[in-house]
Amino acid sequence: MKLWSKSNGKKVQENIEQFTVGQDRELDIHLARFDVLGSMAHAIMLESIGLLENEELKSLLNECKAIISDIDSGIFKIEDDVEDVHSQVELILTKKLGDIGKKIHSGRSRNDQVLVDLKMYLRSKIEDICSQTNSLFQTLIEKSNLHKGDLLPGYTHLQIAMPSSFGLWFGAYAESLIDDMTILQAAYKVVNKNPLGSGAGYGSSFPLNRTLTTELLGFDDLNYNVVYAQMTRGKMEYAVSSALSNIANTISRLAMDVCLYNSQNFAFIKLPEEITTGSSIMPHKKNPDVAEILRGKANLLKNLPTQISGLLSNLPSGYHRELQLLKEILIPAFDTYSECLEITAFMIREMEVKKNILDDPKYDLLFSVENVNNLVLKGTPFRDAYKITGEGINEGNFIPDRSLNHTLEGSIGNLCNDTLVENMNKLIADFKFDKVENAFDKLLKY
Amino acid sequence: MKLWSKSNGKKVQENIEQFTVGQDRELDIHLARFDVLGSMAHAIMLESIGLLENEELKSLLNECKAIISDIDSGIFKIEDDVEDVHSQVELILTKKLGDIGKKIHSGRSRNDQVLVDLKMYLRSKIEDICSQTNSLFQTLIEKSNLHKGDLLPGYTHLQIAMPSSFGLWFGAYAESLIDDMTILQAAYKVVNKNPLGSGAGYGSSFPLNRTLTTELLGFDDLNYNVVYAQMTRGKMEYAVSSALSNIANTISRLAMDVCLYNSQNFAFIKLPEEITTGSSIMPHKKNPDVAEILRGKANLLKNLPTQISGLLSNLPSGYHRELQLLKEILIPAFDTYSECLEITAFMIREMEVKKNILDDPKYDLLFSVENVNNLVLKGTPFRDAYKITGEGINEGNFIPDRSLNHTLEGSIGNLCNDTLVENMNKLIADFKFDKVENAFDKLLKY
Amino acid sequence: MKLWSKSNGKKVQENIEQFTVGQDRELDIHLARFDVLGSMAHAIMLESIGLLENEELKSLLNECKAIISDIDSGIFKIEDDVEDVHSQVELILTKKLGDIGKKIHSGRSRNDQVLVDLKMYLRSKIEDICSQTNSLFQTLIEKSNLHKGDLLPGYTHLQIAMPSSFGLWFGAYAESLIDDMTILQAAYKVVNKNPLGSGAGYGSSFPLNRTLTTELLGFDDLNYNVVYAQMTRGKMEYAVSSALSNIANTISRLAMDVCLYNSQNFAFIKLPEEITTGSSIMPHKKNPDVAEILRGKANLLKNLPTQISGLLSNLPSGYHRELQLLKEILIPAFDTYSECLEITAFMIREMEVKKNILDDPKYDLLFSVENVNNLVLKGTPFRDAYKITGEGINEGNFIPDRSLNHTLEGSIGNLCNDTLVENMNKLIADFKFDKVENAFDKLLKY
Amino acid sequence: MKLWSKSNGKKVQENIEQFTVGQDRELDIHLARFDVLGSMAHAIMLESIGLLENEELKSLLNECKAIISDIDSGIFKIEDDVEDVHSQVELILTKKLGDIGKKIHSGRSRNDQVLVDLKMYLRSKIEDICSQTNSLFQTLIEKSNLHKGDLLPGYTHLQIAMPSSFGLWFGAYAESLIDDMTILQAAYKVVNKNPLGSGAGYGSSFPLNRTLTTELLGFDDLNYNVVYAQMTRGKMEYAVSSALSNIANTISRLAMDVCLYNSQNFAFIKLPEEITTGSSIMPHKKNPDVAEILRGKANLLKNLPTQISGLLSNLPSGYHRELQLLKEILIPAFDTYSECLEITAFMIREMEVKKNILDDPKYDLLFSVENVNNLVLKGTPFRDAYKITGEGINEGNFIPDRSLNHTLEGSIGNLCNDTLVENMNKLIADFKFDKVENAFDKLLKY
Repeated sequence: MKLWSKSNGKKVQENIEQFTVGQDRELDIHLARFDVLGSMAHAIMLESIGLLENEELKSLLNECKAIISDIDSGIFKIEDDVEDVHSQVELILTKKLGDIGKKIHSGRSRNDQVLVDLKMYLRSKIEDICSQTNSLFQTLIEKSNLHKGDLLPGYTHLQIAMPSSFGLWFGAYAESLIDDMTILQAAYKVVNKNPLGSGAGYGSSFPLNRTLTTELLGFDDLNYNVVYAQMTRGKMEYAVSSALSNIANTISRLAMDVCLYNSQNFAFIKLPEEITTGSSIMPHKKNPDVAEILRGKANLLKNLPTQISGLLSNLPSGYHRELQLLKEILIPAFDTYSECLEITAFMIREMEVKKNILDDPKYDLLFSVENVNNLVLKGTPFRDAYKITGEGINEGNFIPDRSLNHTLEGSIGNLCNDTLVENMNKLIADFKFDKVENAFDKLLKY
Repeated sequence: MKLWSKSNGKKVQENIEQFTVGQDRELDIHLARFDVLGSMAHAIMLESIGLLENEELKSLLNECKAIISDIDSGIFKIEDDVEDVHSQVELILTKKLGDIGKKIHSGRSRNDQVLVDLKMYLRSKIEDICSQTNSLFQTLIEKSNLHKGDLLPGYTHLQIAMPSSFGLWFGAYAESLIDDMTILQAAYKVVNKNPLGSGAGYGSSFPLNRTLTTELLGFDDLNYNVVYAQMTRGKMEYAVSSALSNIANTISRLAMDVCLYNSQNFAFIKLPEEITTGSSIMPHKKNPDVAEILRGKANLLKNLPTQISGLLSNLPSGYHRELQLLKEILIPAFDTYSECLEITAFMIREMEVKKNILDDPKYDLLFSVENVNNLVLKGTPFRDAYKITGEGINEGNFIPDRSLNHTLEGSIGNLCNDTLVENMNKLIADFKFDKVENAFDKLLKY
Repeated sequence: MKLWSKSNGKKVQENIEQFTVGQDRELDIHLARFDVLGSMAHAIMLESIGLLENEELKSLLNECKAIISDIDSGIFKIEDDVEDVHSQVELILTKKLGDIGKKIHSGRSRNDQVLVDLKMYLRSKIEDICSQTNSLFQTLIEKSNLHKGDLLPGYTHLQIAMPSSFGLWFGAYAESLIDDMTILQAAYKVVNKNPLGSGAGYGSSFPLNRTLTTELLGFDDLNYNVVYAQMTRGKMEYAVSSALSNIANTISRLAMDVCLYNSQNFAFIKLPEEITTGSSIMPHKKNPDVAEILRGKANLLKNLPTQISGLLSNLPSGYHRELQLLKEILIPAFDTYSECLEITAFMIREMEVKKNILDDPKYDLLFSVENVNNLVLKGTPFRDAYKITGEGINEGNFIPDRSLNHTLEGSIGNLCNDTLVENMNKLIADFKFDKVENAFDKLLKY
Repeated sequence: MKLWSKSNGKKVQENIEQFTVGQDRELDIHLARFDVLGSMAHAIMLESIGLLENEELKSLLNECKAIISDIDSGIFKIEDDVEDVHSQVELILTKKLGDIGKKIHSGRSRNDQVLVDLKMYLRSKIEDICSQTNSLFQTLIEKSNLHKGDLLPGYTHLQIAMPSSFGLWFGAYAESLIDDMTILQAAYKVVNKNPLGSGAGYGSSFPLNRTLTTELLGFDDLNYNVVYAQMTRGKMEYAVSSALSNIANTISRLAMDVCLYNSQNFAFIKLPEEITTGSSIMPHKKNPDVAEILRGKANLLKNLPTQISGLLSNLPSGYHRELQLLKEILIPAFDTYSECLEITAFMIREMEVKKNILDDPKYDLLFSVENVNNLVLKGTPFRDAYKITGEGINEGNFIPDRSLNHTLEGSIGNLCNDTLVENMNKLIADFKFDKVENAFDKLLKY
């Protein structure tokens, strides 16, 4: 408790440094590759405006490639007395190249450096999430097609309502992911703009060519206004985490359905052995722990935008140090998203569905709307048909007509899954992820 | 306190009805026009599949147009003993047309009716917000252009950092609105899909033609899967309110800057008399109340997605009655957004900026980076130039070089406002709002 | 949309005033009685330190009592061109008493006036909530006692687990309310401190006697530090809404159980006709709309602290105008709490429970732990007994022992409801609400 | 990406286990000591009701003490193939004592075990937080006393308002902590109840003596109703994190003031060198990074109740596996609270305040209220005095009267810090932390 006494100066210093640096050293590893790529682009641009000699550029690019090779092979580390990835990279370059290594910081601030790193990092992570989301989507579509004939009670108000099917149920979550990806694509667009050159948020008197670095790093456009470029810190993290929340929401809702359908009171599905667990006290239990943890993790992920918003609220414009904490909020969340998407896909793939559920007479009333509609098709006005059927139910005369013949788009008999697949494919193509890959390939061959 | 006693049956009934219906009657007025348009499209489609006679359709369309005319002239009301707008419209049609009025409910549930109404309402409100946001954007660009030469201290960590300008400051918030609109466009896409035909979430056995109503109502596409169509309730409100949060965030941050810059300790701006107020106890005060309330209202608007998320969390799929509460959350929020955008634009337009702020010697150190850069341009490596200038400051020898010459894209000397205007215009065109208008025009002439 | 054009000065002024004043006129009616009581105490104190003549005091008190009488009879109104309740009361006094009316503002600011009003208002509302919560508590205890013998499946992971009972289920929610009230009592303590005399947050050079107004208004203590007194704005609203959240949480969880138990797949309870509704499309539905809206409203109430927190985050110390928005957040919420507590109590009171639920063989496995325990009581170590029973279940030999004999405190056979009632009564007595009533009685007779 | 392919069964199993167990192994270390103490109390009780022989009890207690000794010396570990601390402790006991080790699980479930562990853990953590909060409180009071004569501008609306002082400013935050501790005490009361015996939430048929374990573990009372005992999971974490939020709020607001006062535009304070940092690009910067990170961390801590609420929303009663995630939310937060309280105290202690700030003529208007009051004391009605002074200011005739003479309770001249210290001491004594210590001492000597 006396850690902070004045007499113990060194300890104070260490604690404060630990408090200030936080998890930056660990988290910055995720940014390392992008940091070096950003430095390469910056150096090429500096040479193009005469702030680096061509020979200096060549040396710098060579050393940068060597660092990337260390990063790719897992050797790269941020040393204990080095604050962050930007300092570590500069340190290596200076050690190897002396004054030339120092020159790379011209016209750049750590503020625009971390911004450009984060934007490249976020692009890459969004690409991963897209790929995993698409994979979950495909799994859902497969199951939907496979079980299009397996009926399920449809509920409203948790009351049995009308006939549904596993085809509809799986397909609904697939379609949900399409809308989720639509929002994510907008977040990607917001992220995919180059802040390099904005310095500490007020630009630079060097005649930097921002259009050049934009091309070199595969960005779609610039964050033009340098004050705004700095303002995107926090704002882009909010946009990305908000967009991802839609995916979390889809997962958590699906998981809730799974927990319910797995209850003995519904008994609609059978979960694979691997994802249920027993009880330390009740020998008969087969609990859907994995679905519950999915639901919980997804619910926590949905909270990220609120966390980010609470951090940013009422901060005046300009950089503030707590913006670093955004890394702690968002970087680990990508692992959780990844894990949740994988496990959801596994759970869906291995899940067995119960057949002939609707044969149970407790579900007879599901067919009441069918009876109403049959009356209507024979000419009775809807409200009267409704009344007649209701009286039948009350008097115990109701005989369900189980011959379902739904043909409308998106209904039991016409799932439109092919259209959904087309729409998803189109959406993913629109991200144009290869533009980034091509730019990086070119940069690494420079 | 005894409202609920058993002996007072009638009172109980009233209280429960009040609790259940809530503000639906008032809020549904906002949906009325869309409800009738939806009914017209549904009727046309019913006729096309033989569930209405052509004569019946004509009568229905005529009565619908009469109701729309009442809505447009402000006469339309939801009666006290009628639950919601859907019932009111059906009631009017039935009173006028008898059995024909009843027939319009064939193949439709209140669930897909409220969904289609809300989607049309949200489209329309997003269009309004776009227009007002664009107007604020234009105002900010004008002020940015007007004051591109008026310098301002740039801050990081609330410490004076480097020279900035009012051109940059106004322009930054303009560019912020472009990214905000990018996200809003994705929310618009998610909203702009037709749920009609999904019934209570499980479709219908009638051979409804959902593609036809999609065209008639100007939607871009369908919510295909009928279970998913119902699942969009809450989900679309979340997407829209999340997207709007970015605008709220831009406004609240701007308002915080305004409150700060208006403080005697900054004194960078002068607010118009109309938006400052005095104090009941301190005769010298000119308080920025309007900016503070803007900040507060915007901060509250940012909370809407969290409210929606709290409402939806862990609800199994299928409709639940509390989804009606979404109307109470979102409908009044549009008025607040509208008001905030108007007043922000007014405040920005009327704001005066102080000239020659940087002449105050307390801002001399803002120019330290310029001195560093000048050394670099003369050949000193950056880190050494940084050290030399730092020593000059510590020893009191520092002479600021006030000759700013920033040329890079988005900097003081090169704001790129024209590009921003182009990008905003392109973005707004991409919404394709006229597609909806055209569809409605056609529908009303049917 | 041109509301704000410069050429239309008057309109601008009106819109801005409307924006700034917001709902203050309507909301301040809730504060009126307390505002006048506060003025009476302030006047008595001013006289005691020689800033008012005794005759002046008498006139003021008489007029104040007249205003209170108008408030009590519903006549009191805040006029259209008067900003808030404080101005309205001062206006009335000045109209009636001239200069004497003006004198009452000595040593006071609207800031400490609204603070003291709000604290008295919050005290009074907390008292109401306590009374209604206690009433719900008593209802739950009654139902728990009534149905102590009616068994229910106990669930973990939504899987059937062990026998439970309606006695336990109702009683659990009763006990939950005790913990909720414990937190609410702390919030009451935080609220129950006198800010009067703190002025605009920096005190006054008048020799005000704050201890005297503390006694006159029945406060427990002072907010001493005048800067802190102002800082309690927002902070107390946060404390109160956080405390109330626990009640909302209890209600929403109870409502979720009700919706589930009302589903045909559980069918444990029968809701009174008055609180179920039908469907516009499915004639057989009896939906638990009221329970769903309870769940939804309670979930929204749980969000209030987040709203308040978002409003306050990162505001420097000292009053800011958006703090007025706190009234919009909290004052209507008390009505919602009141309504939810009433309706929950009604729903619980009128709910019927199904008998003999556990006779259904699907619940046999609930008794597996009983079988394990019987083996243990006969000497088998627990883990072995668990294994034996588990094997019995897997091999289909399991015969449930339905003779429940739970005696431990708080179990099926020993609910301890009497102790819960005692604890609740003690807790409510500890609020000491009569201290306030006594102070007000004395003040009104002054 | 192919981690989950069916052909790779083992990998699936590992991934799912990792996903399910999560961080439980690391986090449970924090519960280990309490888990063993709980087992000791449970064993003593089992012996008292004849479910353990006296000799068996002795062996068990001896082994438990040995485990505690391992925990205290940091040797205790949860092995890789053991799921949690409860299993690890049972494993050790079974290895050492065979059948006797197994017997300790009689009448207990992991559900009530983790509940009782968490309640003891939370009690202990609240005690730590109290101690650190008190320490920060004392530091603030010391600084307040030391600087009671050092004046500061008081702001409202970020506009200069009236004279304040560092005495008031430091003291305000001290008093804030008293209210924060009042709420925390209520959370402590809610936590300090014994759930042991509630099993999986439905009790046990063993005649367990819950009153005995309550005494042995130093709890104040029982969670009576066994269903409610389980319901406290999540609920108590919400109560604790909500209560702690008040402390976070006090810290974040203080940190915001510090960042502002440290800006060159205010320049009221000088932060110790150790907690400021430079800039990579601007050689003159001394940034308040530590205060900013304090602000940010505190703002994130304020979000914990929302996270917890999002996790629990709409879960039906009964245990669900995601409740384990509560440990990930709350356990690391205690370290952050601890760190933030330490560093805030350090920052306050080492902070230097600037003298004679109000001599700057820009602060003259701060004294306008003094002038008004002087007129009032000479007999002018308040509203007239206000008008006269206002006119003087507008005409440039205003001469500030700098002779402050504030005597009212809690004002510049009468801080009442001694009363605040008394109130804080009384509050801390009311927690009665020694009751727990005494119970544990007795238990360890059993």
